Formats: sequence, C-alpha cells, structure tokens
Amino acid sequence: MPATKRLGKATVVFTNPPRFQGFASVVGKKEGNGPLKDDFDLILQDTSFGQKTWEKAESSMQQEALQRALTKANMVSGDIDYVLAGDLLNQCIGSTYGLRSFEIPLLGLFGACSTMAETLVVGSMLIDGGMADNIAAVTSSHFCTAERQFRLPLEYGGQRTPTAQWTVTGSGAAILSAQGTGPYITHAIAGKIIDLGITDTNNMGAAMAPAAADTITQLFIDTCFKPEDFDLILTGDLGKFGQEIVIDFLNKAGYKLSLNYDDCGCLIYDLEVEDVHAGGSGCGCSAVTLCGHVLKKMSKGELNKVLFVATGALMSPTSVAQGESIPGIAHGIIISNSPN
Amino acid sequence: MPATKRLGKATVVFTNPPRFQGFASVVGKKEGNGPLKDDFDLILQDTSFGQKTWEKAESSMQQEALQRALTKANMVSGDIDYVLAGDLLNQCIGSTYGLRSFEIPLLGLFGACSTMAETLVVGSMLIDGGMADNIAAVTSSHFCTAERQFRLPLEYGGQRTPTAQWTVTGSGAAILSAQGTGPYITHAIAGKIIDLGITDTNNMGAAMAPAAADTITQLFIDTCFKPEDFDLILTGDLGKFGQEIVIDFLNKAGYKLSLNYDDCGCLIYDLEVEDVHAGGSGCGCSAVTLCGHVLKKMSKGELNKVLFVATGALMSPTSVAQGESIPGIAHGIIISNSPN
Repeated sequence: MPATKRLGKATVVFTNPPRFQGFASVVGKKEGNGPLKDDFDLILQDTSFGQKTWEKAESSMQQEALQRALTKANMVSGDIDYVLAGDLLNQCIGSTYGLRSFEIPLLGLFGACSTMAETLVVGSMLIDGGMADNIAAVTSSHFCTAERQFRLPLEYGGQRTPTAQWTVTGSGAAILSAQGTGPYITHAIAGKIIDLGITDTNNMGAAMAPAAADTITQLFIDTCFKPEDFDLILTGDLGKFGQEIVIDFLNKAGYKLSLNYDDCGCLIYDLEVEDVHAGGSGCGCSAVTLCGHVLKKMSKGELNKVLFVATGALMSPTSVAQGESIPGIAHGIIISNSPN
Repeated sequence: MPATKRLGKATVVFTNPPRFQGFASVVGKKEGNGPLKDDFDLILQDTSFGQKTWEKAESSMQQEALQRALTKANMVSGDIDYVLAGDLLNQCIGSTYGLRSFEIPLLGLFGACSTMAETLVVGSMLIDGGMADNIAAVTSSHFCTAERQFRLPLEYGGQRTPTAQWTVTGSGAAILSAQGTGPYITHAIAGKIIDLGITDTNNMGAAMAPAAADTITQLFIDTCFKPEDFDLILTGDLGKFGQEIVIDFLNKAGYKLSLNYDDCGCLIYDLEVEDVHAGGSGCGCSAVTLCGHVLKKMSKGELNKVLFVATGALMSPTSVAQGESIPGIAHGIIISNSPN
C-alpha cells in the first residue's frame, strides 16, 4: 500500500481523525499562579509533590496526569493500547518511573521539548492506521530537575540572562481514541532537524525558532492552509524572543502571522510580573498549555481550529561542552472541532 | 476505524507487510574480531573514527550506517519519509548529530537498548498505516561513551563483575519500504515496562530478561505461533545469564525454547576468548546483529522466519543513585521471507 495519507511533502491527513477523549494537566505553584491558573486540573503546593527527590516528583506528576486523563476519558489503563511518552531527564526516567505501574505497552519517545507534539503525531498515526483504538500521550518537565541536570545546582543561585527561559514544572496527558466526542486531530507533520548554528544555551528560543518556522511553512505549503484559517497558531516554548524570530521567518516565506499567533512559553507566565525572563520552556510547557488551556477552550467552542507546533532543542550539556551547536526540531498537529 | 490490525491483546499483524530494502552495520575493532566479523559493512580500526570525541565518533557511526543502508537500498535521503532513531546518550545526541545532515523528518525514540526493535515496530506501523512509503531506522552505542556516562571514567580501570556486559561499539541502520524485494516484517509487538526489583547495575541481563519473556509469551498467545515455528528467536542483549532467565520463564509459561533461541549479546563476541564477561550490550548490539548477521542470512535464504526481540533497561545513573530498581522493556517483530 503506498502512503495514501500523505499530503504534499511532509504532512499526513487522517482518513478517520482520532479524537481527544480525555486530557489533564498537573502544574507547580508558580504555574498555578500564572494567567492559565484556572485551566489546570491540579496545582502542587511544593516542588517535591510528597516525594524524596525532584526526579521522583516529576514521575509522580506524570502518573497523576495520566490517571486524571484516564478518569476524564472514563477509561482504565487496560483500555489503552499504547502509551507514548518521554521527557527531558537523562534516559527519560520521568516517564519510565511515572508510567511503570500502569502496565500499558510503552513507546518511549525523545523530542526534547517537542515531545507533547511528537507523542500526538505518532499516536494519531497509530490510531488512524488501525494499529490502536486508544493511546495515551504523556510528558513532563520540572524546574528543579532540569536546572541541576542542564545548568547549575539550584543552591548556587546562578544569574540568568535576559534570553533565558524558565523550565515549567508540569505534566500533561491526553487520551486519543478512534471513536468518541472530543476535538479531532486532522493533520500531523514531523519536523526535520534544523541547525542554524546557535551555541548559546541561554537562548533556546533562537535555537528552536527556525525549526518551528520550517515546520509551519511546510504545513502551509502541503495543506494550502493560510494563517488566517486558524483560530490559534501556537508554538511550544520559544518565549518572547523566539516568537519574534518565527514571525520574521514566516513573513519572509510570505505568511503573515498576526494576533492569532502565540507561544506557550509566553502564555503560561505573566512575563511582566514573574521573574521568568523570556518565558516558559520544557516539555511540560506545551503539554500543560495544550492539555489545560487549549483543549478546554476547544471543548467549549471558544477555539475551533488550532495549529499546535511544539519545539525542541536537541542538545545535551556534553554536546555543548564539545563545541556543538544546538539543533532544533518542531512537530505539529492540527486540532479541529470538525473532522475535516 | 477500529484497530483492525490487532491480534489478541498486544500484537499487530500487517495487512501489507513492509520490507527491508537496505540495511548496513558499522562496528568497532573488538566486534570486528568476533564471530560475526564477515557480516559487517565497515569495521573501524580505532574508537574515535577520526573524530575528536567518542560522542562525535558515535554520531559518525550512525551517519555512516544510514548512508550505507540508503546506498544499498538504491535511495537518497529525499526518498525517506521519516527517520526513527535514538540511542543511549543523554538526550540521544548520538542520533541528533549523526542524522542532522540528512534533512529527513526525525521521530526520536527512546527505548534504551530496545531501540532497534522500537524503531522497526513504529516504522512498520507507519508504513502499513499508509503514513509513509519509506522509513529509516537507526541506532548506535559506543563502549567508551557508555562507560563514562553510565559507569566510570575509562582511565580509572574499574573491575567488572561476572554478570557485567560489554557495550557494543556499533551502529545499525535499516530502510523499510512499502514495496520492494527484501524480507518482510509481518507482526510487531510493543512491550510493557516490567520491573521485578533488580537493583544491580552490573546485572542488566537479569533486569531485562523478564521483559523479554513477557513480550515473547504475549506474542505467542496472540499469534498462536510456537517456538518451533521460527528458524531463530533472537533476544537483544541479555547476555548468557539473562538468556538463561528467559528460557526459564518461557518454560514456566509452557514454551520450550531450544536450539533456535539465541541472544545478540552472546552471538557478537566469543565469550570464551574476549574479556566481555556475560556478553555484549547496548543499542548497537542488537542493531548490528540484525542489520549485519540476521538480515544477510535471511536474504540468502539461510533463515526464513525470525522473531527479533530487543530489550532495554530503562534506568539512569540518577535513578539508581536514588534507590530505584531497574525496569526492563522488550519490543519485538517477526521478520519473514514470506508475507504471511
């Protein structure tokens, strides 16, 4: 069978678009004080979530988010064919230990901060392809685990540059189904590695923005959609500087992003009030914005067609220490209240 | 559309089984001195492969393996819809930097040492589901990068226990296509996380073996295949002790594995001659055994039906330091010279 579901060079259009049957978000205190506070299912009051380490707390957030998404979908773990999950921690231990007790076949993914979109891209392909009835998509990040793994011990109290972003403490989980009543995923696109040579680890927005622009442009070309066809175009965690770069790149490609374009890293915090510099970041940033804010608004009909493009920086402290630049990647889905 | 391609509880049976159009393997000197030496496409003469660091060498091995697999498939990178790849390095940098220059949409996976099977499970699902015509599946490991990341600096010269395994230096790449002439992938199964509480990081075989046994048993139940239906049942990198545990577990489940069962970790080195203790390990172990040895024998008709089950230990040094046990996972595919 040839790839009958491909449109243009890189976009897949689904024959039987999978639907969001359930979704849930768990966030930390700082995120729970932000502009999206009313959209989250659970706001933690401390960074450890009752666990002995921050890594265990991150795993517990994934467990909590998935359990809540299952409950909201009126399902149990045995109803799920695959859980697709990953996170920023070395060897993705946030997912492993968080999802261990569910006994669902696991397809581990790594897309850095693009993971929420990657799980939904692959998950919707598995459902539309007839491989699964229901899948779960989960990811997380935690400010404290990310800081000590990627940057400096928290106790050191290092200064942050204006382009630095703040890793979101949060986990988002979604249940996709072949049948049901929620919003549809109608199209999906997987991005290429884009590396324009950025080496500043305190400017991830600039490293990831070209990948977002590339994926959005390719999707517009493949589908013939224009920016104004969407109620919202939402990138993952570019922050305020990365967002400007995307607008610039898209402008040069002939697409004008206007008031319907936003970024999860800018939505999740009040940048004027909180000390988060360029905005939020981390796998959890786009995950909780999607599984809290966006899908709630879609379910209420306040948004009807959304292009969700999460972005990742595919670096490690080792690769940076060895002089490598920071490659970016961006994966995208179109979510719609109509199946076509 | 319901999940029409599912058989039993967890196995997928393909309607139009994807085919291996090309495959290639690149290994280090030690692997190139082992029993499979005539099966590899390239044997490196030093651990650095002309690069300044071992991490860059590992990336270069992936690049070389994929380029050779493309050439053997008579394809260029533009023919490939998705590359599915991952590795053991933190944030999977072996794949990111190795695959960056190909400009193929990347779906990053993390399954620890089960990655080769996971890429083929997901890749064959994408092709059979009509999402892709051609996919590339790539992974790697490198003794020197793994030792210093997971264990001790090489210069320290630490002693190894008898159950310890030796991380294979090698990369395997395969091209799967909707059309073509090579062996078919007829079935695929994704495994669950199985954790029986092993905490000894020098006994990964024991940590992963229960997952292999679980996946193999589930596949036998779902498909009604018996061990004797296969010319070869091959686990990923359990080594000689893990292999014995699988035989035991399968025996208790009512399946007798006999001379047609082997393990990549035992095949790749001469355990009597080389100082590798329990055998080979790492993502590269099952990758080069499959993309060198097994697929060559299948193409020649010396093997006709193979169950390939790669295993992974989903731990990190951090999780072990925090007292966690080592969860295992195993993903599997049936490769056959006949489409059904």
